[in-house]
Amino acid sequence: MRHLLDTKNLDRATALRILDIAEDMSDTQSREVKKLPTLRGKTVVNLFFEDSTRTRISFEAAAKRLSADVINFAAKGSSVSKGESLKDTAQTLEAIGADAVVVRHPSSGAPQTLATSGWISAGVVNAGDGTHEHPTQALLDAFTIRKRRFGADSRGRDLSGLKVVIVGDVLHSRVARSNVWLLTTLGAEVTLVSPPTLVPQNVSLWPVQVLFDLDQALAQGPDAVMMLRIQLERMNAAYFPTEREYSRLWGLDALRVDGLPDGSIVMHPGPMNRGLEISSEAADSARSTVLEQVANGVSIRMAVLYLLLAGERDDERGGDQ
Amino acid sequence: MRHLLDTKNLDRATALRILDIAEDMSDTQSREVKKLPTLRGKTVVNLFFEDSTRTRISFEAAAKRLSADVINFAAKGSSVSKGESLKDTAQTLEAIGADAVVVRHPSSGAPQTLATSGWISAGVVNAGDGTHEHPTQALLDAFTIRKRRFGADSRGRDLSGLKVVIVGDVLHSRVARSNVWLLTTLGAEVTLVSPPTLVPQNVSLWPVQVLFDLDQALAQGPDAVMMLRIQLERMNAAYFPTEREYSRLWGLDALRVDGLPDGSIVMHPGPMNRGLEISSEAADSARSTVLEQVANGVSIRMAVLYLLLAGERDDERGGDQ
Amino acid sequence: MRHLLDTKNLDRATALRILDIAEDMSDTQSREVKKLPTLRGKTVVNLFFEDSTRTRISFEAAAKRLSADVINFAAKGSSVSKGESLKDTAQTLEAIGADAVVVRHPSSGAPQTLATSGWISAGVVNAGDGTHEHPTQALLDAFTIRKRRFGADSRGRDLSGLKVVIVGDVLHSRVARSNVWLLTTLGAEVTLVSPPTLVPQNVSLWPVQVLFDLDQALAQGPDAVMMLRIQLERMNAAYFPTEREYSRLWGLDALRVDGLPDGSIVMHPGPMNRGLEISSEAADSARSTVLEQVANGVSIRMAVLYLLLAGERDDERGGDQ
Repeated sequence: MRHLLDTKNLDRATALRILDIAEDMSDTQSREVKKLPTLRGKTVVNLFFEDSTRTRISFEAAAKRLSADVINFAAKGSSVSKGESLKDTAQTLEAIGADAVVVRHPSSGAPQTLATSGWISAGVVNAGDGTHEHPTQALLDAFTIRKRRFGADSRGRDLSGLKVVIVGDVLHSRVARSNVWLLTTLGAEVTLVSPPTLVPQNVSLWPVQVLFDLDQALAQGPDAVMMLRIQLERMNAAYFPTEREYSRLWGLDALRVDGLPDGSIVMHPGPMNRGLEISSEAADSARSTVLEQVANGVSIRMAVLYLLLAGERDDERGGDQ
Repeated sequence: MRHLLDTKNLDRATALRILDIAEDMSDTQSREVKKLPTLRGKTVVNLFFEDSTRTRISFEAAAKRLSADVINFAAKGSSVSKGESLKDTAQTLEAIGADAVVVRHPSSGAPQTLATSGWISAGVVNAGDGTHEHPTQALLDAFTIRKRRFGADSRGRDLSGLKVVIVGDVLHSRVARSNVWLLTTLGAEVTLVSPPTLVPQNVSLWPVQVLFDLDQALAQGPDAVMMLRIQLERMNAAYFPTEREYSRLWGLDALRVDGLPDGSIVMHPGPMNRGLEISSEAADSARSTVLEQVANGVSIRMAVLYLLLAGERDDERGGDQ
Repeated sequence: MRHLLDTKNLDRATALRILDIAEDMSDTQSREVKKLPTLRGKTVVNLFFEDSTRTRISFEAAAKRLSADVINFAAKGSSVSKGESLKDTAQTLEAIGADAVVVRHPSSGAPQTLATSGWISAGVVNAGDGTHEHPTQALLDAFTIRKRRFGADSRGRDLSGLKVVIVGDVLHSRVARSNVWLLTTLGAEVTLVSPPTLVPQNVSLWPVQVLFDLDQALAQGPDAVMMLRIQLERMNAAYFPTEREYSRLWGLDALRVDGLPDGSIVMHPGPMNRGLEISSEAADSARSTVLEQVANGVSIRMAVLYLLLAGERDDERGGDQ
């Protein structure tokens, strides 16, 4: 694997390989062998054009456990024009010898540009670009669903036949997009639930069912319900209901959680707006995987960095992702 | 030791153990063995809800000399409500595998909440919370007094019979509070000197003498005079004298230093307002331990991290601090 | 070498030694031996009173490849008065055990003050001070010129007989100053080209030719043309031409590049204002060494840190730079 830019173009075999290596990484994360020498001498740069402390420290922890050196580069607020800035910054990172660049950027497609421009030879990991994709989030979500369902028997398995409901502001969500592509590639059936004004225009091209009624979706007995984070700053916009209305119609509360089938789980990428898209009872219930998702995020990012940086030689023969 | 939250509940034996291990750490800080492998594979997170570069880099240097990985998390300016933010942030740190969390927070009690909430299993070190406590500062102060007094014979000794005067805005000072509890636990006699408006209401419950007249306190022949930092932004408040008045009545100048007994030392937690609470002559005099305090701070923080992270197994049998 | 404060006082032998060690460092930067154990246990502090992500990460990468611990200290925005702040900050760094301090400061002379004040025993590297000097930039520029000219035969050679043209806002440029001193020490002939309002008053004391006409300078057939970065915020000032006028008279475009002799190179310290002081064609031409300069910067900074921290014992006998 040269880069990880999206899940839309991630094939089933590669996706499963990432999940399986993440299982191995997760196993080593007992206290005894927390630190692996695998990426000693490699340099991972966190290039963040948007703030995201949580995602940044997850990648930082993953890289350091593999013994890589980490350099944090907060490019936010740079006055240079965006296109220029990305190119010159990329070339700087190349020149100082970055082996992998983890990039978060407000513009959809920026990681793709970085990876295919020829500006750098480093591996590129998309850590969230505009409203486009956030592939490691989807990978950790798939990992979490699989692990909860199959436990020690997870390796090699996909999500065939599992039903996942994704709820919220799908229109603006890169997390939703990355999950749609990855979960369906892995065989899951995905249902999107959102206010009518927050459905993407081209959703008819997506391999999903779209509903406006959360209770109707939950009545189908999903294996996982994934609540999206509401961006509060969007709450004033014309296409958005009031907080109270949103919470009543599309929020997950204890009552809705109680109606879920046995073994069904409640997911959220964090940080949660408790009382808005999810109630505290739902967030803290035994079905909630919120904290497992964060922990699994480190394992997934270790696996991705491993495949980009240690698996290089194999993959240079194998092609470009 | 599971956590270090305050000095009020720190018993004499544990306090002496920290000081003695800090002596060992200090001894290794010759160039030859600057870096110890003790905490390899452990992750220390500096979680700072307030700016404090000095304290942060002291903990960072301490952790790195013990070969721990350090992740800096500046949580200042987060828009999330405080309680929520602390909980969700804590859980994130737990999930990414933090072994110790060094926390500075504007709210008194936040580290206690973090440690006792069940949100995390990591050890918690209070790096300053509101006007409550700053225990590693008091430990490095006690270490500095002991080392100046007993030199190579310091190990195992407490501060019995030593007289310490603490001068300044006691009302708002977490440094003063931590020192009061620790120094008296270690047997010292503590005198507080401050303007009448800056004495805490419940000071009669503290095991200290309170005076308003600095010269009267100095006439008692203290072994150490500890000047508190004045927060200049408080200088406009009604309960505060003018800078000039403050300096004349409660500032330490060359004349006052000259009147001190032989062997008596001048302390300040830094950064100093030269010309306000301390004159440059006093700050730079041979009695001043300002720089030793900073250096000793690294040794103390190494000792605390060592006890939290390497001493775990012992202490899990021994109880919760 | 105790410190690296400027190039004005750097003798030819020491300069060549740095360049030659940088060649060695550059050779090791193949993937196989990217990380050297040379500075294990040493602490390098990046003390930046001005933002400069590029310079900071170059030093950070250099230090980490030599296995030093790196602590970043962004001192910008501190409210303390400048003189006070520098002294107290320096003493803090000394006390926490910094072995080298890389300092960028808006005041000319701050690194010199730091190094000669007696406040610290750490080695000091000037990473840019006011309009005074930026010595590692000049060293990497000299390294780049030498390597392009002599390739594998570079070691031990100086720049005798080479002609270098430096173009732009010389008045405010520390890069220009450092290059003037270093390049002439190494035997090069330097020509400065700038608008008449942007020539330093005392330029007649510099060992250079001064011209106002770029085409006249280029007609002399320089081996290297070094374009300075224009600070856009200065463009409103009375002594500055308009952007359009500047670009026409002192910008490097494809036409001017085409007129250069074979083997002559185009340099820029970055980040570039494409379309202002340099056109994109010129910046991306085969003559451009912009990216090599960045890569060479890491090698130069490795060499400097090596000489300061690993070469200590030799140099303590040899004197103070």
